[in-house]
Amino acid sequence: MRIFVVVGHLATTSPDFSLEDIPGTSGRLDILCRCINSAFVLSHGIRRDVQVYLVLCGGPAQKIICLQGDRLRHLNPDERTTAALLKKALALEADRKFVRSTPGIFVRQGDLAGLLAALREEHPKLPLYYLKEEGADQRQAGIEEGIYVLGDHQGMTEEEEALLEGCKSQLISIGPLSLHADHCIILINNELDRMSVETGKQEP
Amino acid sequence: MRIFVVVGHLATTSPDFSLEDIPGTSGRLDILCRCINSAFVLSHGIRRDVQVYLVLCGGPAQKIICLQGDRLRHLNPDERTTAALLKKALALEADRKFVRSTPGIFVRQGDLAGLLAALREEHPKLPLYYLKEEGADQRQAGIEEGIYVLGDHQGMTEEEEALLEGCKSQLISIGPLSLHADHCIILINNELDRMSVETGKQEP
Repeated sequence: MRIFVVVGHLATTSPDFSLEDIPGTSGRLDILCRCINSAFVLSHGIRRDVQVYLVLCGGPAQKIICLQGDRLRHLNPDERTTAALLKKALALEADRKFVRSTPGIFVRQGDLAGLLAALREEHPKLPLYYLKEEGADQRQAGIEEGIYVLGDHQGMTEEEEALLEGCKSQLISIGPLSLHADHCIILINNELDRMSVETGKQEP
Repeated sequence: MRIFVVVGHLATTSPDFSLEDIPGTSGRLDILCRCINSAFVLSHGIRRDVQVYLVLCGGPAQKIICLQGDRLRHLNPDERTTAALLKKALALEADRKFVRSTPGIFVRQGDLAGLLAALREEHPKLPLYYLKEEGADQRQAGIEEGIYVLGDHQGMTEEEEALLEGCKSQLISIGPLSLHADHCIILINNELDRMSVETGKQEP
């Protein structure tokens, strides 16, 4: 199981953004749409063993959108239709428990701290990784299926970093240059695909 | 110098597509927009040593759009504004010589055969790679700065494959699973970034 947690520090929690100007009206939900594409989209299908959690911090009550590969439908690779799916999820009345929007997409109120606690309880054996430029190169670090936490274009706050440190997350990086979160997810997926083949979990 | 050539078999050569439905009205120009993002976008800037050539086959007279990193301006990471730049280029009267649209973006009439001939003449020392599932793994192949040719969601035609074979292109692949062209470009860029650091051409 691969779980990607992406924190959108400005990302809107309201459906009142324009699909005609996603970057300008949604607090950069476009970044999160590209992360969804990177996490799930294969040449001929969807990665079923992936989950994505988006933490939307750009509203008075933060929200979490969860996408589950094994149930996901209606996902196209382009940004706009993905943003339309998120818009639909954000239009739902959200409280502390996940409610289903479209197949495989769920939404609730919540923040990073609560999400990490819940994920660690649900998946106690999965390692937790935090993507950061100073981290160990993922090729050397020997990464495994696990929970991967990434920031958006703003990086993580000090508070979030302290939280991740408290969870004993392992710092990893994806190479010599600093890349956007969606590009990092492609590189992690590829590394894990290679690992799966090596360990015989997946046919090439 | 890294050159990415992406063939859009259905991609429109006309500016008459809708930014409100890029996948449905432009012959999947959305794929090419994502390739542009993958080729150029860094966390804090643009890759200046990259060129992208899009071969648009979805019109009576095929067109080529060239994007040059060292002169490129107005490029944002989202699909829609990239598509708007391509729309602008396609609105220009194009003949056999490149005309400039916006800074770093040029358009002309032409096809893959002519483009490859021109690129090989201009860059006789750059190796030519063709991305294909059956190719050698790029990590083992020891790839270098060069010309990388990729197909869109339809793959290459037999004619194009024969052409690439005639150019003595090297077949490479990016890992165990079949990925979209834009995801492949991320993986090639990362591999080349690592090579540059190893050979001391670039500071980490």
